Amino acid sequence: MKKHNFSAGPCILPQEVMQKAAQAVVELDNSGLSLIEISHRSPAFIEIMDKATSLAIELLGLQDKGYKAMFLQGGASQQFLNVAHNFLETKAGYANTGTWSTKAIKEAKLLGEVVELSSSKDANFNYIPKGFDIPSDLDYLHITTNNTIFGTQYKALPETNVPLISDSSSDIFSRSLDFSKFDLLYAGAQKNMGPAGATLVVAKEDALGKVSRQVPSMLDYKIHADKDSMFNTPPVFAVYTSMLTLQWLKEKGGISAIEKENEAKAALMYGEIDRNPLFDGFAAAEDRSSMNATFTLNNASLKDSFEAMAKEAGLNGINGHRSVGGYRASMYNALPIESVQVLVDVMKTLEQNA
Amino acid sequence: MKKHNFSAGPCILPQEVMQKAAQAVVELDNSGLSLIEISHRSPAFIEIMDKATSLAIELLGLQDKGYKAMFLQGGASQQFLNVAHNFLETKAGYANTGTWSTKAIKEAKLLGEVVELSSSKDANFNYIPKGFDIPSDLDYLHITTNNTIFGTQYKALPETNVPLISDSSSDIFSRSLDFSKFDLLYAGAQKNMGPAGATLVVAKEDALGKVSRQVPSMLDYKIHADKDSMFNTPPVFAVYTSMLTLQWLKEKGGISAIEKENEAKAALMYGEIDRNPLFDGFAAAEDRSSMNATFTLNNASLKDSFEAMAKEAGLNGINGHRSVGGYRASMYNALPIESVQVLVDVMKTLEQNA
Repeated sequence: MKKHNFSAGPCILPQEVMQKAAQAVVELDNSGLSLIEISHRSPAFIEIMDKATSLAIELLGLQDKGYKAMFLQGGASQQFLNVAHNFLETKAGYANTGTWSTKAIKEAKLLGEVVELSSSKDANFNYIPKGFDIPSDLDYLHITTNNTIFGTQYKALPETNVPLISDSSSDIFSRSLDFSKFDLLYAGAQKNMGPAGATLVVAKEDALGKVSRQVPSMLDYKIHADKDSMFNTPPVFAVYTSMLTLQWLKEKGGISAIEKENEAKAALMYGEIDRNPLFDGFAAAEDRSSMNATFTLNNASLKDSFEAMAKEAGLNGINGHRSVGGYRASMYNALPIESVQVLVDVMKTLEQNA
Repeated sequence: MKKHNFSAGPCILPQEVMQKAAQAVVELDNSGLSLIEISHRSPAFIEIMDKATSLAIELLGLQDKGYKAMFLQGGASQQFLNVAHNFLETKAGYANTGTWSTKAIKEAKLLGEVVELSSSKDANFNYIPKGFDIPSDLDYLHITTNNTIFGTQYKALPETNVPLISDSSSDIFSRSLDFSKFDLLYAGAQKNMGPAGATLVVAKEDALGKVSRQVPSMLDYKIHADKDSMFNTPPVFAVYTSMLTLQWLKEKGGISAIEKENEAKAALMYGEIDRNPLFDGFAAAEDRSSMNATFTLNNASLKDSFEAMAKEAGLNGINGHRSVGGYRASMYNALPIESVQVLVDVMKTLEQNA
């Protein structure tokens, strides 16, 4: 049975990417060797890393703008610490829009003064605070562009002159933004890029290496940038698969093309959530994420029926995170609109049968 | 043409492991989903993580001895920092046996007093210092059981009552040791376990969480242990492939069985290095690594011939590290003795033709 994979991450990737990645594990490009048994210092892998980082820069529209892309390890959770190590000199500002922002704040506080400039915790993070004051003396402002758990997303970036840093793990490469507004953005690969185990960091090169503290080598973005992500052995398979996904995205027409698809999927999904009297959207309408739609079933007696029907239809990964409850449809780049239609049809059928 | 893969890491893995790993990237166990698109919180992946960590403990003979195995990220380089964060209270001792020990010392110095108890730097790390004094007031003694670059290996562990911590990246699961002598040992996966991107950490549970400093979450072994390696999204593919390799090793008869094979390969290799008048071993004979044999060609005029013959025979990855020069034959668990024989035959032929 065909599965419709709505998992929040790790998540669906393009079928052709998974096929090509599997083939490379057997043998890389008729080399007689598997991708995972070659040296990361081999010309073949250096080319893979170069291509993956170049594609990231190109897709984000950052060519010739002084940015460097790196593939590191540890996910966004590691970057919570690294960001503070590399940029927090005296005072940093954080916008708290959910679980991951909260964790980022916690780790940064170990390194210096952290000001929580805004928070939507009062409403279980169901909206994005806007128009908050941003002091001009901050070392940086940290935001989370998309909040996977709560299903909210910044539609416009905060206006500020302080350096902007973002955790964009769950919406990178999904929509157009002026990425040159960021001094640094990072994203775990396991949403729109590849398998878990690699983390993309894109940094303005002249912003690196400026902090006065001595940064441990593995946490130092300047070291990783200067070594072209090869300071230590990189996560070869995750980088290769990310390269394949970025290549797939480029061939589809890049971010502007996938953004249209993502908007169509989101419109279909939220249209049904709003139309169907059995369901309620969780996030404030204006802040709804095009990646993660969170919603609840307002008739508890239909829970078992809905979940049985969903299972029968091959829907996978639609349970909401425990912090929100209900359901979550994650609609990353590789999810076809046909899968969203299957979910919508199940919601309609539930209503008709009720 | 068949390749004989002597790469130092990432390196050869069992053929059947690479085939099974590739299959799982296409589809995991008839689930209708790829290994790399399922949630790490799914029952299927939790079972994989449990199996991988249980196999590690079992193969090391540490069942019911109070140890916990974890799969983390960042390689040994990250553990250089983590070890100091978790264990360095006032003073730590390090034995310096090469490039990686030197890097471990550098990172630990950021956290407290570090005493270099011994070093073989005076002879470009071609031997393992023995019988050095180990103060009884150390928080721990850190060693590197096998030195990939220089081809040396501790044949016996230092005798001490202070907690023993080891970087065993390049000889874990290759030979019998009393692993209960370690409070903690760690190893990047990309030698005897799996692809780059996962790091095995095996720790005595009651040694964790004792340090007085506040450890950042991602560096805190206690957090990772308590969360069963799921504090953040683990490197799913690398963990799965490591599980397959550990299963393969168990089916072969475990460490004691593979150790015999490794000894036979090493005997064949070093036998030829010692016999053949064209070659010299680099490491002191008594400290020779069974994993990485380092040697030089003592007639520079034969360099091109040797390398051409090696290439023609399908030998891959035999160039020495720049710190040593010459050649290095890495003979990890998955390398068949037939590959060593091919290299030995090339060395013999070179001699006969000379």
